[in-house]
Amino acid sequence: MTLAPWRSQISRALHLNRSKPYSRYVQLATVNTQGLPTNRTVVFRGFLDNSNQLQIITDLRSEKVTHIQHQPWGEICWYFTKTREQFRIAGHITLISADFAEFSLLQQRKQVWQKLSDSARAQFAWACPKESRIKDQEVFVSALPSDREPLENFCLLLLNPQTVDHLELKGDPQNRTLYIKESEQLWSMQEVNP
Amino acid sequence: MTLAPWRSQISRALHLNRSKPYSRYVQLATVNTQGLPTNRTVVFRGFLDNSNQLQIITDLRSEKVTHIQHQPWGEICWYFTKTREQFRIAGHITLISADFAEFSLLQQRKQVWQKLSDSARAQFAWACPKESRIKDQEVFVSALPSDREPLENFCLLLLNPQTVDHLELKGDPQNRTLYIKESEQLWSMQEVNP
Repeated sequence: MTLAPWRSQISRALHLNRSKPYSRYVQLATVNTQGLPTNRTVVFRGFLDNSNQLQIITDLRSEKVTHIQHQPWGEICWYFTKTREQFRIAGHITLISADFAEFSLLQQRKQVWQKLSDSARAQFAWACPKESRIKDQEVFVSALPSDREPLENFCLLLLNPQTVDHLELKGDPQNRTLYIKESEQLWSMQEVNP
Repeated sequence: MTLAPWRSQISRALHLNRSKPYSRYVQLATVNTQGLPTNRTVVFRGFLDNSNQLQIITDLRSEKVTHIQHQPWGEICWYFTKTREQFRIAGHITLISADFAEFSLLQQRKQVWQKLSDSARAQFAWACPKESRIKDQEVFVSALPSDREPLENFCLLLLNPQTVDHLELKGDPQNRTLYIKESEQLWSMQEVNP
């Protein structure tokens, strides 16, 4: 596996913006079952080893899971506030839940779970997202789930980029570079007008 | 016109995050002509007078215009880094370009143009977005366009919210409120699980 040419640009941006914890927050757009766009902030959890796939986590009870099962494509918009640059990353999404067929990815799901903070893991034991608010605080402060074995509703989401659109606002004029995946090993790269 | 109940929450967030210029940057998701999600950062330009519609500007030559002409629906994801809260705002989009039928909105298009900075206006005179980069710097530093009359390719984009999903990460547990437009004058509001 060779790293895609845009990977060094992401690494650079993550490094230069490392003082801002929200630099790992990205917006993920998917379409719902009516074909309408939906959009929410998620946390970038690093790249899957030996791949260019972005790791994100989600609760199986979340609406985006239904959207992705219906249309497994997403576009991430990642804006870095300090360096004033944006990456738009579009690609196919795979959901790795407890019943996934490939052992190595199940292992990866477990590893991502094990690396989470206690508070991040605890959210997977909360009441069902977006249902009427349960006033009983107890359902939100139940015993911490195991730090070894993921809860059933824990899902690893992998986005496999096919196009990356990198815009740097700092230039005058701005710089914009388009990367397109031509094959497993080959990315084309083109400078375009901002 | 009555202000929707979520408007005070947006005002509050804009006020508390006013030290960060990028607090007016939002991510707008649309779908392309293949029905796939697309996502990019745009600048919030205030609300249209006497309405709850969000104003954004775009170049008619931009891909999102084609997307919106095909499917006039979008979802904005607006994350405020300082107060750690997110608004997801979904609704119908109207494009107000030079040939729009309604005079008052054409006037509004002109007013938004007039309020832009010189550098924001200059971008509408740049070479066509996303085409092969033109190396001649001249096409990016041409004479400034008029500050009175918008260029033909200047387009005002209005998003008319139908649902707003407000998530506050700071609570423990987090707070999440769902607003749904029931009619022109009536919004329902429900506290839901985060």
